[in-house]
Amino acid sequence: MHKKKPITVVKIGGNIIDDAQELKQFLADFAKIDGLKVLVHGGGKSATKMAQSIGLVPQMIDGRRITDAAMLEVVVMIYAGQINKDIVAQLQANDANAMGFSGADGNLIQSDKRNHPTIDYGFVGDVKKVNTTLLETLLNSGIVPVFCAITHDKNGQLLNTNADTIASELAIALSEFFEVTLSYCFEKPGVLYDAEDDSSVITKMNPELYAKLKAEKAIHSGMIPKLDNCFNSLSKGVQQIKIGHHKMLQNTNAVCTTIEL
Amino acid sequence: MHKKKPITVVKIGGNIIDDAQELKQFLADFAKIDGLKVLVHGGGKSATKMAQSIGLVPQMIDGRRITDAAMLEVVVMIYAGQINKDIVAQLQANDANAMGFSGADGNLIQSDKRNHPTIDYGFVGDVKKVNTTLLETLLNSGIVPVFCAITHDKNGQLLNTNADTIASELAIALSEFFEVTLSYCFEKPGVLYDAEDDSSVITKMNPELYAKLKAEKAIHSGMIPKLDNCFNSLSKGVQQIKIGHHKMLQNTNAVCTTIEL
Repeated sequence: MHKKKPITVVKIGGNIIDDAQELKQFLADFAKIDGLKVLVHGGGKSATKMAQSIGLVPQMIDGRRITDAAMLEVVVMIYAGQINKDIVAQLQANDANAMGFSGADGNLIQSDKRNHPTIDYGFVGDVKKVNTTLLETLLNSGIVPVFCAITHDKNGQLLNTNADTIASELAIALSEFFEVTLSYCFEKPGVLYDAEDDSSVITKMNPELYAKLKAEKAIHSGMIPKLDNCFNSLSKGVQQIKIGHHKMLQNTNAVCTTIEL
Repeated sequence: MHKKKPITVVKIGGNIIDDAQELKQFLADFAKIDGLKVLVHGGGKSATKMAQSIGLVPQMIDGRRITDAAMLEVVVMIYAGQINKDIVAQLQANDANAMGFSGADGNLIQSDKRNHPTIDYGFVGDVKKVNTTLLETLLNSGIVPVFCAITHDKNGQLLNTNADTIASELAIALSEFFEVTLSYCFEKPGVLYDAEDDSSVITKMNPELYAKLKAEKAIHSGMIPKLDNCFNSLSKGVQQIKIGHHKMLQNTNAVCTTIEL
């Protein structure tokens, strides 16, 4: 068997997207990553701002946006339009041959509308299937795919979808053909023991430590689905996962959290 | 030399996009076109409506939108986000493997910011170059490209670009590898002698007739750049051009205007 080619899947959070200078610096660093790469971006605050400016009242349950038809229009506009195309144009200026996608494009990511027993999340999708064959063709043509957090159900319905989940599902699907490193970039240098202390980075996280920190409530609610995603991805074939500030992409000595099984 | 494969490039105007039922019917017909195909869509009224709802005042000169930075954000959101992704999702539901693009994606269409001696059009682009090699790879992978009227300058700047021009530039570029039919679909059955009489379709338009009708002022201002584009495309290698209602896509006997050199 041939050794698999390495690929880097990077997910950036809203705080990078909301800060034009930080985004610019991130994209310059991302463009310099050697070899194959994929970018997944969340939404930032623009969708909420746009919704408010046209009179919609955003609804959240457990930190998740409830996506009614009007809000879906807004997130599609902002995520797949404004943010995605701005990122693609900037990467092109950095000589990365970026191409922006929702899951509907090329049926790259198909989802099921979430069917929850008690909460109606609205037009929210849970990833069902990644079109890895087409993705591999694109990557082998030198394309740098840039995914926004919108998917579809293949029946004409676009669906708002969690960007962390998209990143981990892409990483899992790609691990069939590639040796995948998945990097979650955000404003902090890693997962912290003490949320108030940026020097308290947990450099190695494994399931035992995770269980212990959850029991101690040292791991916060927003971090739990992120870490659950990570352990799930590792168990399904992803080679390596890192969480930290985007400077870890260019500086392999930068402090960050490495997730291990 | 091998015979070139046929390809159909279709451009739809704003009136189809603004009418959900008409758009749905058009997309079902478009999906059924045999063989390779490309769709180019204009913007419709949504961008103007969105601009107004967030307090922008659209400016037009000679029927062309003046695109300042705020208006560019709106057209990118609406054209590349809302309209493009809705069309892609609907085509996917019709089993066409659609993939939505701005010109920035894969550097498929690079433009120069318009430099006019007297009018500052703002962030408006004139097409400079089509990345035909990548487009051919995508088409040969079974992709149905769907282009919105946004391009970029390869230096990080997105640019608002006339959709008719994008359609004709794509058709010209593709004619190097394919036998191209370019179809402009709108709400009328073709170019009319009498704008008030839908039965007055000019079924064959050639340069002599065009010159005569322009001199008689029977051809309207909006139709002039469209027809200029058509004759330019034919002289540069496009095989066939049709203007008419989208029913001509499925019914080869439907009345329409065929443009000839």
